[in-house]
This record gives sequence, structure tokens and C-alpha cells, in this order.
Amino acid sequence: MHFSLAELAERVGGRVEGDGSLRIERVMPLEEAGPADVSFFANRKYAAAFAASRAGVVIVGENEEAAAGRTLLRAANAYLAFAKVSTLFHPPREPVPGISPRAVVSEGALIDPSAEIQDLAFVGRGATVGARTILFPGVVVGDGARIGDDCILFPNVVVRERCVVGNRCTLQPGAVLGGDGFGFAFDMEGVGSGPRHFKVPQSGIAELEDDVELGANCTVDRATLGKTVVRRGAKIDNLVQLAHNVEIGPLSLIAAQTGISGSTKVGMGVAMAGQVGIVGHLDIGDGARFGAKAGVHNDVPAGEIYSGYPAVPHRDWLREQGATRKLPELWKRVRELEKQLKKLQEEA
Amino acid sequence: MHFSLAELAERVGGRVEGDGSLRIERVMPLEEAGPADVSFFANRKYAAAFAASRAGVVIVGENEEAAAGRTLLRAANAYLAFAKVSTLFHPPREPVPGISPRAVVSEGALIDPSAEIQDLAFVGRGATVGARTILFPGVVVGDGARIGDDCILFPNVVVRERCVVGNRCTLQPGAVLGGDGFGFAFDMEGVGSGPRHFKVPQSGIAELEDDVELGANCTVDRATLGKTVVRRGAKIDNLVQLAHNVEIGPLSLIAAQTGISGSTKVGMGVAMAGQVGIVGHLDIGDGARFGAKAGVHNDVPAGEIYSGYPAVPHRDWLREQGATRKLPELWKRVRELEKQLKKLQEEA
Amino acid sequence: MHFSLAELAERVGGRVEGDGSLRIERVMPLEEAGPADVSFFANRKYAAAFAASRAGVVIVGENEEAAAGRTLLRAANAYLAFAKVSTLFHPPREPVPGISPRAVVSEGALIDPSAEIQDLAFVGRGATVGARTILFPGVVVGDGARIGDDCILFPNVVVRERCVVGNRCTLQPGAVLGGDGFGFAFDMEGVGSGPRHFKVPQSGIAELEDDVELGANCTVDRATLGKTVVRRGAKIDNLVQLAHNVEIGPLSLIAAQTGISGSTKVGMGVAMAGQVGIVGHLDIGDGARFGAKAGVHNDVPAGEIYSGYPAVPHRDWLREQGATRKLPELWKRVRELEKQLKKLQEEA
Repeated sequence: MHFSLAELAERVGGRVEGDGSLRIERVMPLEEAGPADVSFFANRKYAAAFAASRAGVVIVGENEEAAAGRTLLRAANAYLAFAKVSTLFHPPREPVPGISPRAVVSEGALIDPSAEIQDLAFVGRGATVGARTILFPGVVVGDGARIGDDCILFPNVVVRERCVVGNRCTLQPGAVLGGDGFGFAFDMEGVGSGPRHFKVPQSGIAELEDDVELGANCTVDRATLGKTVVRRGAKIDNLVQLAHNVEIGPLSLIAAQTGISGSTKVGMGVAMAGQVGIVGHLDIGDGARFGAKAGVHNDVPAGEIYSGYPAVPHRDWLREQGATRKLPELWKRVRELEKQLKKLQEEA
Repeated sequence: MHFSLAELAERVGGRVEGDGSLRIERVMPLEEAGPADVSFFANRKYAAAFAASRAGVVIVGENEEAAAGRTLLRAANAYLAFAKVSTLFHPPREPVPGISPRAVVSEGALIDPSAEIQDLAFVGRGATVGARTILFPGVVVGDGARIGDDCILFPNVVVRERCVVGNRCTLQPGAVLGGDGFGFAFDMEGVGSGPRHFKVPQSGIAELEDDVELGANCTVDRATLGKTVVRRGAKIDNLVQLAHNVEIGPLSLIAAQTGISGSTKVGMGVAMAGQVGIVGHLDIGDGARFGAKAGVHNDVPAGEIYSGYPAVPHRDWLREQGATRKLPELWKRVRELEKQLKKLQEEA
Repeated sequence: MHFSLAELAERVGGRVEGDGSLRIERVMPLEEAGPADVSFFANRKYAAAFAASRAGVVIVGENEEAAAGRTLLRAANAYLAFAKVSTLFHPPREPVPGISPRAVVSEGALIDPSAEIQDLAFVGRGATVGARTILFPGVVVGDGARIGDDCILFPNVVVRERCVVGNRCTLQPGAVLGGDGFGFAFDMEGVGSGPRHFKVPQSGIAELEDDVELGANCTVDRATLGKTVVRRGAKIDNLVQLAHNVEIGPLSLIAAQTGISGSTKVGMGVAMAGQVGIVGHLDIGDGARFGAKAGVHNDVPAGEIYSGYPAVPHRDWLREQGATRKLPELWKRVRELEKQLKKLQEEA
């Protein structure tokens, strides 16, 4: 597979600086790229690698400075242009229609003829699988679940009974959609054997709207009643926990190992870094952003940036952190004040 | 499926305020419930939804105030009554006895005739599966493992060799019982190729006593020697990590993404919020409670509430947090003191 | 299986204090060991258990004190000696060569004749599985993946297409190697339906070098370009997240639930406790160590110990924690200073 540089530029809406007839054969990191390769430069941390790169062409932003003679593909959003170029070289895997004889498709399941059901995949009774969707080995689609068109369910993904996956969703290996929410009512009397935790039926479902991605081994619980929902275009990273009745707004990005407790509503375009924790029953406004490891105990207004534990507006957190860093000095100054004051008092 | 309101009240030990002959057909959230539905109200955050709800009947506590004319099912513990009502409408799935011809049951395994072994489930040599227990597709029960009666192992659960699951246990999808503990002894000499980490055999087992639930993709490691054990009635949420030789006491609740390091003993009725971390070799007393993200480095006495990182008694943590919040002000006041003192000294 | 004490000592390079002819039949914890058992004592927390133990012999360090008459196996590194003794009693499971008729091995896959492919395991097209390697039920090895010699892939492990596993690697149940990295470029225009996150192809691979262990349900993402790599002898615990293009140096130990963001390079012999988080694009020097829950935002030099969030050198963190603990007292003292100063001013 190869493209001319001019062709790449046209396909991604970029602009060539240099020889547009250059033949590009691969996408490579700056350090490993050679004369027939395209690479990209968007993070200043890698300026030295950019300067030293032997890449035939480098994708950069409109105003990026570069050494004279360096062939460039300039784009308003360099990272997006890179993503598009890379997609040309690495087109998504096409489904190979058909149901493997070593897969199990239960009674009443509806599999689109263009779908690909691989060996050792399982589809439950009355479940549906849409056009061009691929189920890899070990995938389990429960009874009555609905999987849309153009989805990829990687190996060992579980979608439990009655849950819903929209179109163009990708579920990385081991992701679990629709496990029971963690709901127990304390029953002091039990059934003759002392107290117990009485399980609250988790009779709702979990739903992914269109264009959602779930990371490897992440868990999205089904609702106690109603549904847990990840809305259109939201992306969820590995090992994220979304509890029962959580709602994640469209286009939100939730990084790895973040956990969101029951019934919390997250707005549109929210971004959470890794290992964030949000307690239950909160409202997180549109466009809010959270630093890594933030621990959120209260509602957050739209557009705010929160950090820390307990999380506060990011600027306050920075100030608090600065003040904490200097605490030993503060102690010293207070002790000095006490000494000086004592001296003054003795003199008076 | 439907019940009269009077019948529901009788079954859950509650009391009707209104027309007991009302026919109830579904359990629904406050916002979506209609005249033939039962809902519940237990969290004040949803007072407006309660006031506006069109639910035919709402389950509430004994002293909850409600608008005149509202039909109510009052109970001492509203959430427990709701759980019981919901269980009437959503009874647990009954097993369909038998072993699927597409399951694999190894030599010497003992499957109770009333158990349900679904397609693509695997049971190892000499393993046992008790009465009415259900193994979903993709479940792997290792050689010599023992699964009790009335258990549900959801898709892709793994119970490794020789591990033990009691009666009435539920393992959500992807849960792993009995993976090797993380134990390595540093071997400076290695075997001629320099230092290495020498694997410490994890020859013990992991055991769940009766009535335990494990969340999706959680991991409970087998012991180095002896056993890791989750005692009667404890409930473990998604993505929780229990390391080798950990013991979780009866009726404890461990929320999502919490991690407990090796050999720590957790008492009875302990409650941990999400993302808590407990270091190894500690004793956590009965009834202790932990705020979200608490990081625990020391033993905790029975009945205490700990928060923060490093975790301290919750009241101390609140005080520290308050003091930290006001640190910038403290700096300001100290600077003012220094100024005033200097002035006084110059005057003196 | 049994050994004489003298034989054990010789095999592990230790020294007997007592009767070398003692017949040892089991390895047991101090509390449960009897006269024919070997146990070990290396953590002072268990001194009482050591004193009370009925173990026939206890493995201890060279300078450990013990009651007169206690039979001991002394070794320079007691824990390593214990690991070696335990390995004698619990030798690793030998592979039973062959491919189960209920496994699926795709066209062009190369399985070494000494490998063991168990029921319901899957090997993709063109993949290779080395000598004496064991694939348990539910394992999925993707197209073109390469698994080395003497590996164990426990149930439901996923190795996605083209990824590489070295020799003598162990992957605990549910571990995922080679899921897509979390990479999206924001595309304001989308395709007529408004903004979207454009998926950046994750066309690289993930690789484990020799002697690596991955914990249960951990996730190691494939690279955007190039490879994510865990180098020789590193050990990764349960539920750890390694993002795209991360590099983990040889012999590093990463404890449970830690997360490392994209492109961060971790050096040789680094040790991270549980629930640590490291942001992306950092350099972590050789031999650096991290306390539990550390949140790391900056490069860390070789050999340093960091703790806290944001992480700082451990000694600074201890000092800050101490100062924070005493903040309420500091406020009190400042208020007293203000009072005294006011009094002085009024007198002046």
C-alpha cells in the first residue's frame, strides 16, 4: 500500500511543503521513520526527535517551525490529520460474513447475513447482531441483547441479557456490559440465620449509543431500574467502572481506571483523566474536566476543571498544593514569630 | 405478572396507606412510573421526583412525609421493602437442568443433575458443581474446584484449580477466583543470566463461603500457603483486587476498584467505598468504615470511620481538609503578623 | 512427596540447625504446620506465630534469633530459600502435549508438538505457540501472534493479533495483551453529524519479553505506532493498566491497580506499590520506587523514592504529612499570636 504525498494531503485536507510526488509507504514514529515514511509531530516533548528524524514527511500544525528543507504536511489539527493518514494505511478489518460452525447461535437469534460470528463466540436466544458486525472468539451475547451494525466485539467481551449496543461501537477484549449493579439492602433479621445483605434485583439494562468505545476489561453495570447509558460518541478506557444507572454524556472521554458511582449523570464532552473517582448521585456539567486521581464528592458546574481529593477547582488545588509544599517553612516562621513576640513581651 | 398492593405489603411486611386493592404490574423509577407501577423513595436528593411522580404506589419509610392522597407502602426499611417487592416481580432465573453438548465436562467431574451447564462452559477434572447451579458460556472451572449449590457463574468467570465456592454465590462476568498471588523473591544470582525475580509458588487456594457475590472482572488471588477467603455474606464489587491470603469478614461490603494487599484481615461488617487501598499484613476491625479513595497504612480499630490518604479518623480528616482549604489565608495572616511585629519592634 | 531436611538445605543452599535427617512432607504456614512440615519466618509481625509454631523446621535468615531446640534451615535470603523449597514441593504443572479436538487452531498456525492446547482455546491464523507452552480453556491467541516456549496462558487470557509473548511468560486469567490504545483526535467537523472523536489507529503491537508475568485481568495496550513493551523479567500484578507505547524496564515490579499512561518509559528494577498512577510521556529512572497511591506528574530520577499526590520525594512527603496533621494546632498558635500581638499593640 502506498500513496503520493499530494494524495495524502488532499485526503486529509492538509497542505504540502516540499515534493508532493513523494511516494509514502508506511506510517512510522519519528525515531524509526525513513525516507518513504510519514510521521507526525504534535508534542513539544519530542522536538529533538523531530529535528533528528529521517522521515520522508512529517505532519505538523500550521504554525510549527521546522528546519529548512524538511518536507511537511501541514494541517490545522496535526493529530487529526495523522489519525486520518494512519487510517488510510491501516483500514479497519473488513468482516468476513458468516457464522462459524464452531460458534453457538441460540434459537431465535437474528444474525445479519453480513455479520461475522467467529469460532467459539456465543449468541443467546432472541439476541440480534447487526450488519457487518464482528464477534471474535469467546464473545458472549446474552439472551435478547441487541448489537447494532458495524460493531467490533473483541475476544471475551460479555454483553449480558437484554443489553443494547448501538452502531459503530467497539468493545475491547474482556469488557463487560450489563453485569449486576452493586445493590444490597441490609436485612437485620435475615432468614433465621442472622443479618444478611438482601440483593436488590438489577432488572434494568445497560446501553451504549452509537459510536461508543469500551476499553479492555472495563465494566458497565446494568441499572437497578431503567438503564445505565453511555451516549453517542463517548469513549471509555480500560478498567473503567460505570455503576448502575450512571449516564455518560455524548462525546465524553473517561480515561483508564476511573470509577463512577451509581446514578451519577455526566454531561456532554466531559474529560476525565485516569483513576478519577466520582461518588454517586451527582451531576457533572457539560465540558467539565478532571485531573488524574481527582476524588469528586459534589456536583461540578459545566466547564469547570477540578483536581485533587477531595476535588476542588484546579486553580484552588494548585494554590493549596503550593501552600502545603511550604508548610514546613510556615511552621518555622510561626515559631520565629512566637520567639520574637515573647522577647518583646519580656521587654515590655 | 401482577400483585395487589395489599399482597405486596403483606409479602414484605409493610403497611398500606391508600387502596390495598390497587393492581400493581411493574416496578419503575419515580420519573417513569405510572398508575399501575410501584416505585420507591429513600434518598432525599430525589424529593422533587417523588413529589412529581405518577407512580400508583411509592414505598417509603415509616416517617416519610408525603402529599395527601398519595398511595404509599410504608416499611421500617424502605429500601429493603423495595428490594423484596422488586424480587417478586423479577424472580431469579431458574436453572434449566442439564449439560449442553457444546459444554466440556472433564473426566471425573461431578455435576449435580439439577445444575445447568451452558454452551462453551468448561469444567475440569475432578471438579464438582452443586445443585441448581448455573454456569454460563465461557465459564472455566478448573481441575478439582468445588462450586456449591444455587450459584450463578456469569459468562467468562474463571475459578482456578482446587478453589472453592460456597452455596448461593454469584460471580459476575469476568471475575477471577484463584489467580496466582503476586509473590516473588529477589534472586540476585539468578541462573547465570543475572538477577531475577524467583516466583514463590502460590500453592494455596481461594475460597468463597456461602452467599458471597463477586463483581465483574474482580480478582481474588489464591494464597501462597493456606487460603484467601471471603466469608459468609460478604459482597465484593467490580474490579476489586483481593491479594493472596487476604481474609474478608462476614457481611463486609467492598466497593468497586478497591484493593487489599496480601495477608490483611478485614473483620465482620466492614464497609469500604470505592478505590480504597489497604496495605498488607493489617488488621481491620469489625464494623470499620472507609471513605472513597482512603489509603490505609495501619491497623484500624473496630467501629472506626477512616478517610484520606494516608487514612486517619474521619473527623480528623475533615478538620485537616478544612485547615488545608484555608492555608492561603493562614499564610496571609502570618505575613500580616510578621509585618505588625516588625513595626512594634521598630517602635520599641 | 517428601525430602529430608538435609536434602532441602542442600538444594536451596541453606544450612541446617538440628537433625538433618528429619523427613519433611509439606510446606505450611507457621500456624498450621506440624512436625513433618517446613514453614518460614521473615516478617517480624509474625514473631508470636513463629514462637508458637509446631513446624518441624522453619526457614529463617542467617541472624534470626530463635528458641533453643528449634530446628532451623538458615539461609542468606530466607524468603528466596522458602520459594525454592516450596517449588520443590509444588513443581510447575507439566504440559500434556497435544491439541484438544475441542480447541480451535486456525489455518497456518504453528503449534509446537510439545505444547498443550486445551479445550475451547483458540489460536488464530498464522499464530505460533512455542514448546511446552500451555493454553488453558478460553484463551484467545489472535492472528499472527507469537507465543514463546514454556509459557502458561491461564483461562480466558487474550493476546490480540500480531502481539508477541517471550519465553517462560505467565499470563494470569483474563489478562489482555494488545487491546487498542486509547487514542482519539477531536474532529470538530465530523461527517455531517457534528463533532466526533476520530479513532487513531492503534497499528502497533504489545510485546512481553522473556520471564514476564501479567496478573489477572490486567490490560497492556498495543502501541499507536511501534510497540508497547514489558522487558525481561518484569512482573505486573492484577488489574494494572499499561497504556499504548509504555515501556516497562527489566525486572520492574508493578503492583495491583497501578496505571501508567501513554508513552511513559519506566526503567530497570523500578518498584511501584498498588494504585499508583503515572501520567504520560514521562521518564522514570532505574530503581525508582513509589509508595501506594502515588500520583506522578513529573520525571523521576533513578533511585528515588516518591510518594503522595502529587508525588514528591518520600522524605518531603513525610514532612508535609506531619505538618498537615498538625495544621489545626498551627491555626491555634497563629490565633494566639494575633491575640498576644494585639494586646501588646494596645499597651504600646
